[in-house]
Amino acid sequence: MAHALVGGKALRGYLVLEGARLHGISEARAMWPAAAIEAVHAYSLVHDDLPCMDDDDLRRGRPTVHVRWDEATAVLAGDALQALGFELAAHPDAGPAHVRADLALTLARAAGARGMVLGQALDIAAESAEAPLGLAEITALQAGKTGALIEWAACAGAVLAQADPAPLRAYARALGLAFQIADDILDVEGDAAKAGKRLQKDARAGKATFVSLLGLEPARARAAELAEVACAALECYGAGAESLREAARFVISRDS
Amino acid sequence: MAHALVGGKALRGYLVLEGARLHGISEARAMWPAAAIEAVHAYSLVHDDLPCMDDDDLRRGRPTVHVRWDEATAVLAGDALQALGFELAAHPDAGPAHVRADLALTLARAAGARGMVLGQALDIAAESAEAPLGLAEITALQAGKTGALIEWAACAGAVLAQADPAPLRAYARALGLAFQIADDILDVEGDAAKAGKRLQKDARAGKATFVSLLGLEPARARAAELAEVACAALECYGAGAESLREAARFVISRDS
Repeated sequence: MAHALVGGKALRGYLVLEGARLHGISEARAMWPAAAIEAVHAYSLVHDDLPCMDDDDLRRGRPTVHVRWDEATAVLAGDALQALGFELAAHPDAGPAHVRADLALTLARAAGARGMVLGQALDIAAESAEAPLGLAEITALQAGKTGALIEWAACAGAVLAQADPAPLRAYARALGLAFQIADDILDVEGDAAKAGKRLQKDARAGKATFVSLLGLEPARARAAELAEVACAALECYGAGAESLREAARFVISRDS
Repeated sequence: MAHALVGGKALRGYLVLEGARLHGISEARAMWPAAAIEAVHAYSLVHDDLPCMDDDDLRRGRPTVHVRWDEATAVLAGDALQALGFELAAHPDAGPAHVRADLALTLARAAGARGMVLGQALDIAAESAEAPLGLAEITALQAGKTGALIEWAACAGAVLAQADPAPLRAYARALGLAFQIADDILDVEGDAAKAGKRLQKDARAGKATFVSLLGLEPARARAAELAEVACAALECYGAGAESLREAARFVISRDS
């Protein structure tokens, strides 16, 4: 299950479903925030691939939206997907009103100018920076760009159950960083056919990555260490959290 | 007050504040959805001005975001403004949880693929259509493009008060259409300096408008008729709704 969903590029939705299961929340309720975070993630990819952003023509092994259709369609499809994310997060079947209001509010904060969009803006700025970013800057950039949505996804189950999200938050922070380091490793030594997108773009653009800053083997070791930190954060959940631990281990060993 | 806000391009926020006042809701609460709808409206303008969309270099008398900064910044600023809209709509100070959840949910529906984005997509498609659109198609296009947010704004006060939004909805539907017809008239005979944006774009692009379909004087008469319909819809509110009636009359007489 973990491999199919995480490898199938639905990591965020999977985190929502598993976090919800840990708290005894039905899949019928959890599917709303799970679909919400996948919609917001999908919007970010469609806009990120635009010519004025990362200018990518391939995503998940298929032409990107602006290549298949046109730029206006990609802008509008991304805009509609973001709105859909909030429609799903606030959906009446997701739970009681205060949970739905909380899901919408926290999703907006995770996606917005102090979350994912900030990370994207820092990433774009890094391309024209005079000197490559350092480790602290790359870490801050990634905390926004990929970390914010992963954290929201992991915590959503606790929000649905009105439980303390702290253990899932600690798990998500380590997982998010491990995920990004693994992504940087894949960008260097991955197979573009398996990844379904262009690789080695960062190196060609002279952009700093965890691999360029740490070196390949230390980066691999750091990712493994973070996966262990992520697993340890779930100790309070006992054996019930094994799927989430498996997801953390999978994230650093994936080849696509 | 109406002239300053409506003329100052904050029609939607003004509708929220006035609709809330009619229902005895404090400005301290109403300012959250008022700011929310202005954020979503602003995002739509920033994206609409992009080169791949309407390609405008002037808005409110100043260079558009992609001209002043760059396209990536305009895409990201729009994305962040949309998220901000939902953050404000679901803000804890806007009211009880079910009101906030309802504001976020209805805003998402108004902004998304069956609301504003649909209107934008129909507008883009109209540019490359073989034949200009007819009256029914233009009306449907505008119901999404400008109508959906105006309707949400007018109804927000009733949502805040958990009252029946039907009279405000009827007001908004007539107002929204009157607003768009007035916009088409301004596009033909307005002063670009006062409007703060390029005019006569639709005619040059060969796009159908209410003016091209109805003729200038019949369009003016239709807008006046719709403003009266809007005013009449507020009868149940008595003299308290005079500001909203004034806004409807102002919308069809504005010169910018």
